[in-house]
Amino acid sequence: MAAARYKMISIPEAQATVLQHTPVLESETVPLSAALGRVLAETVTARDNLPPFPASIMDGYAVVSSDGPGEYPVVGDAHAGCSTENLSLSPGHVAYITTGAPVPPGADAVVKVEDTQPAAAAAAGGDAGSQQRRVVICKAVPAGKDIRQVGSDIEAGAVVLQAGERVGVAEVGILATVGAASLPVHRRPRLAVLSTGDEVVAPETENLGPGQIRDCNRAMLLAAAAGAGADAIDLGIARDVEGHLEGCLDKAIAAGVDVLVTSGAVSMGDRDLLKPLLERKGSVHFGRVLMKPGKPLTFATLSLPGSSRQLLVFGLPGNPVSSFVCFNLVVVPALRKMSGWAQPQLRRMQVVLTSPLKLDPERPEYHRVVLGYGRLPPACGAAAGQLGWFATSTGNQISSRLLSARSANALLELPRAEGVLEAGSTVSALLIDDLGFMPQAETDVPATEGFFA
Amino acid sequence: MAAARYKMISIPEAQATVLQHTPVLESETVPLSAALGRVLAETVTARDNLPPFPASIMDGYAVVSSDGPGEYPVVGDAHAGCSTENLSLSPGHVAYITTGAPVPPGADAVVKVEDTQPAAAAAAGGDAGSQQRRVVICKAVPAGKDIRQVGSDIEAGAVVLQAGERVGVAEVGILATVGAASLPVHRRPRLAVLSTGDEVVAPETENLGPGQIRDCNRAMLLAAAAGAGADAIDLGIARDVEGHLEGCLDKAIAAGVDVLVTSGAVSMGDRDLLKPLLERKGSVHFGRVLMKPGKPLTFATLSLPGSSRQLLVFGLPGNPVSSFVCFNLVVVPALRKMSGWAQPQLRRMQVVLTSPLKLDPERPEYHRVVLGYGRLPPACGAAAGQLGWFATSTGNQISSRLLSARSANALLELPRAEGVLEAGSTVSALLIDDLGFMPQAETDVPATEGFFA
Repeated sequence: MAAARYKMISIPEAQATVLQHTPVLESETVPLSAALGRVLAETVTARDNLPPFPASIMDGYAVVSSDGPGEYPVVGDAHAGCSTENLSLSPGHVAYITTGAPVPPGADAVVKVEDTQPAAAAAAGGDAGSQQRRVVICKAVPAGKDIRQVGSDIEAGAVVLQAGERVGVAEVGILATVGAASLPVHRRPRLAVLSTGDEVVAPETENLGPGQIRDCNRAMLLAAAAGAGADAIDLGIARDVEGHLEGCLDKAIAAGVDVLVTSGAVSMGDRDLLKPLLERKGSVHFGRVLMKPGKPLTFATLSLPGSSRQLLVFGLPGNPVSSFVCFNLVVVPALRKMSGWAQPQLRRMQVVLTSPLKLDPERPEYHRVVLGYGRLPPACGAAAGQLGWFATSTGNQISSRLLSARSANALLELPRAEGVLEAGSTVSALLIDDLGFMPQAETDVPATEGFFA
Repeated sequence: MAAARYKMISIPEAQATVLQHTPVLESETVPLSAALGRVLAETVTARDNLPPFPASIMDGYAVVSSDGPGEYPVVGDAHAGCSTENLSLSPGHVAYITTGAPVPPGADAVVKVEDTQPAAAAAAGGDAGSQQRRVVICKAVPAGKDIRQVGSDIEAGAVVLQAGERVGVAEVGILATVGAASLPVHRRPRLAVLSTGDEVVAPETENLGPGQIRDCNRAMLLAAAAGAGADAIDLGIARDVEGHLEGCLDKAIAAGVDVLVTSGAVSMGDRDLLKPLLERKGSVHFGRVLMKPGKPLTFATLSLPGSSRQLLVFGLPGNPVSSFVCFNLVVVPALRKMSGWAQPQLRRMQVVLTSPLKLDPERPEYHRVVLGYGRLPPACGAAAGQLGWFATSTGNQISSRLLSARSANALLELPRAEGVLEAGSTVSALLIDDLGFMPQAETDVPATEGFFA
C-alpha cells in the first residue's frame, strides 16, 4: 500500500510544485517560416523607418497643395518601387502616383484619382502643350493629405515585439516587415509518452483477447502534447513485468526529452510500480492530489547524468478521462512555461450551468463541458434569453468514460460539497480548447446594432 | 478606373458569395496520428463493448457481496490484462483484483484495498490453512459495487463520433479506443500565396533600396493559412511587368491548389492588374466591399482545365492590415468549409469597450482589439468591477500599420456612423485567435467559491 505513504495535497499546491520545478527552456534561432506559435526570447526592434520614404496612401496625383484645383501638366509617374528623387515637382505641376509609391520631392499632398478628371484632350487645339499629359484636379487638399510620413507606421529603433510575446499570425507579418528573417525563440519542449499495463493493446487490434482493452491514452496524450506545442515521441507500452518500466524510463532519459508522461501504474495495486521506481531513481514530489478525477496524479523529477537539467515525470492515472484532465491541469501549464509563456496557467472564466450538477462531498471535481456563447437557454432560469456563456455537461463523468471529454472545451470547477448546483448557477470554467470551434450558428448572436445596416 | 466598374457590396453579401462558391472537399483516409484538427467525413461506431468484460474500478478484492465482512481465503489474483475465466469464485472466497482487471466469474462486487486488512498471520496457529493467503474484508458492499459492467462506457455498435465532428485531443483517444487506427477525414485545402508589386522585397533584405519596403504579407498569409489548417505554398512576388502576374496565376493552376490568395494589385492604379486578368481568365464575383479596412477585396473563380473543380482566387488588398482582416473574414470561413466544418463562420460575442472609439461615417469598421476576461477596468463606467469580457484597442488603425494587429485576438464590429462609441459600450466582436492565449494573471478571476477550500 505504497500510495498511502503520499500526503494528499491540494490542486494549487500540486500546480505550484510542478511550476517550481519547471524551467523556461533556452532559446534557439529559427527561420521566420517556423516561428508561428513560438515565444520570442529577445525583444525585436525596427532597423529602419516604415515607410522609409513619404508614401502615397492612394492612387492619384502628387500635388503642391497650395496650387488648389485646376488643370495641370503631369510631369511624370511615381510608381511603387521606383525612385522618385529625380521627379522633383515645382508649383503648377503634378505627378501621377500609385499607392505605396514615394511622393516626389516638392509635392506635399496626394489627390486621389476619384477626385480628378482627364483633361479635355483637344482643349488646347494644335499647340505644343497638347503633347504633354494633363489632368484636372477637382478638389483642394491640405498639405500632408494622403501621405504616410517617414516612420509613421514604425519608427526606426522602436520596439515592435517584446521578449516573451507569442508569435501569432500578425506577429509573423511584423517580423517580416522589420527584416527579422530569423529570430531567437524559446525551444519547444521535448516530451515522451508511455502507456503502462498488461491489459492495453495497440489501437489497431481488431479482436481483443481476454481482459484486453485498446490503449487510447498514448494516441491522445501524443495529440495533446502536439496541441500544446511540444515535440512528442512515442515510447509504446510498458508491460507489468519486472524491469520493463525501468527500461522504458531509461529510454526516455536516453532520448534526451524534457518531460516524460506516463499513464497508469500509479494506483494501489501490486503492479503499480511507477512510484517505487521513481523514488529509487529520483524525487517524487507528490503522489496524491485531492481532485476528481485524477487523485493518484504523481509528479517526480530525475537528475540526468552529465546534465544540469532534470527530467520531469508526470505519472498520470490510467483511466483516460483522468489522464486527459491531469494533462490539461498540470502538463499543459508546464509545457507553456518551458516554451516561454509568462502566464502559463489555463484561462478561467465564469459560465452559467444549463442543467443541475451533483456535487461530490469528498473531492473538488473537474466536470467536462461544452461552452457556448449566445442566448442562455430556458433551463438557465432568470437569466434565460440574455446573451452569455453557458456550459452544457458532457454527461456521465465516470473516469473510464472518455466520451465525457468529447467536444469538451472547458473544465468546470465544482466545489467539494453535498448536494446539487442548480441550473442557472454561475461557476468558474478553465478553457482547454480554442473557443473558435465552439458550436454557434450564424444567427445565434447579433452583430453590433447598425453594423450591417 | 477599372475598379469603379465593380458594384460596392456588403460584407454579408461578400461572405455568402464566397461560401456559395466554396466546395466541401472530398475525404481521404489518414492514420490516427495525423487526425488531430481534421473533420470526420464518416460517422464512427464502436466495434465492441467497452469494457469488453466486467472490469474492476479499484485495486482490492473481488467478492460475493452476500458474504459480507469477515476473513476470507484469497483463491487467486485477477490482474489487468489476464483472463480470469478459470478463477471462478464461490461464496466464502475472494480474489485479489487490480484496477481494470476482469472480475472473476461468481464475484459480483469489489471491495477496495483501503477497506480491507491483512489477516493476522499466525491467527490459526500451525493448522494447514496457514499456507493459504487470507484477507479481512472490513466493509459490506452491494452487488455491482466498483464494477464497470460490459459496455457501460461504450456499447458495441454505438455512434461514438458523428460525421462532421472535429477531431480534438479527446476524440483521438475515443478513436483509439474503438480501434479506428485510420479514418476518413476531409482533405486539407491546398493554398498558394502570392505577393504583388515592384516595391516589395524579401524580408531578409537588410538595406532597402529607394521606394522599397519588405514583403510582410506573404509570410503572414502563409502563417495564417497554416493556422487555419491549410497546406500552403509560396509563389513569391509578382512584379508589375506585363505577363508576370499571369505567369504566377498559371503556376498556381499548375500546382493544383484549391485557393490562391494574392495581396496588392487591386486598387485603382494603372498597375493594379489583377482584376482585369481575373476577368479574362475566369469570373470576378465581387471587386469592392463596403468595409474598413479592405474595400478593394476581390473574389474570383477560375475553371481548371480538365477538372470539374474551380480555383478560388482571393485578391486581398496590399496594405498588411487589410490583408490580415480580409483573410480572417472571408478566407478563413472558406478554408473551414472546405475542411468540413458545419459552422465555418467566425464566432461572435459581445464585449465591453475600455476606451472611446471614433466611428467611421462611410464604412463599417473592423477594429482590432485584445480581448480579456476579468474585472472590468474603471474606464468601463457603470459596469466597472464586474467580471466580464472587455476589449482593449490596439491603437492607431491605419491599414498600413500592422502593429494594430499585434496581439489582436478579435475584430470589433463598429457600425458606420458619425461620432464616438463611449467606453463602457457593448459591441460585438469576432474571434480570430485562441482565447487560451489572452492576457490573464492567475489572480484575475476567482474560482467557484469553495473550489479550493
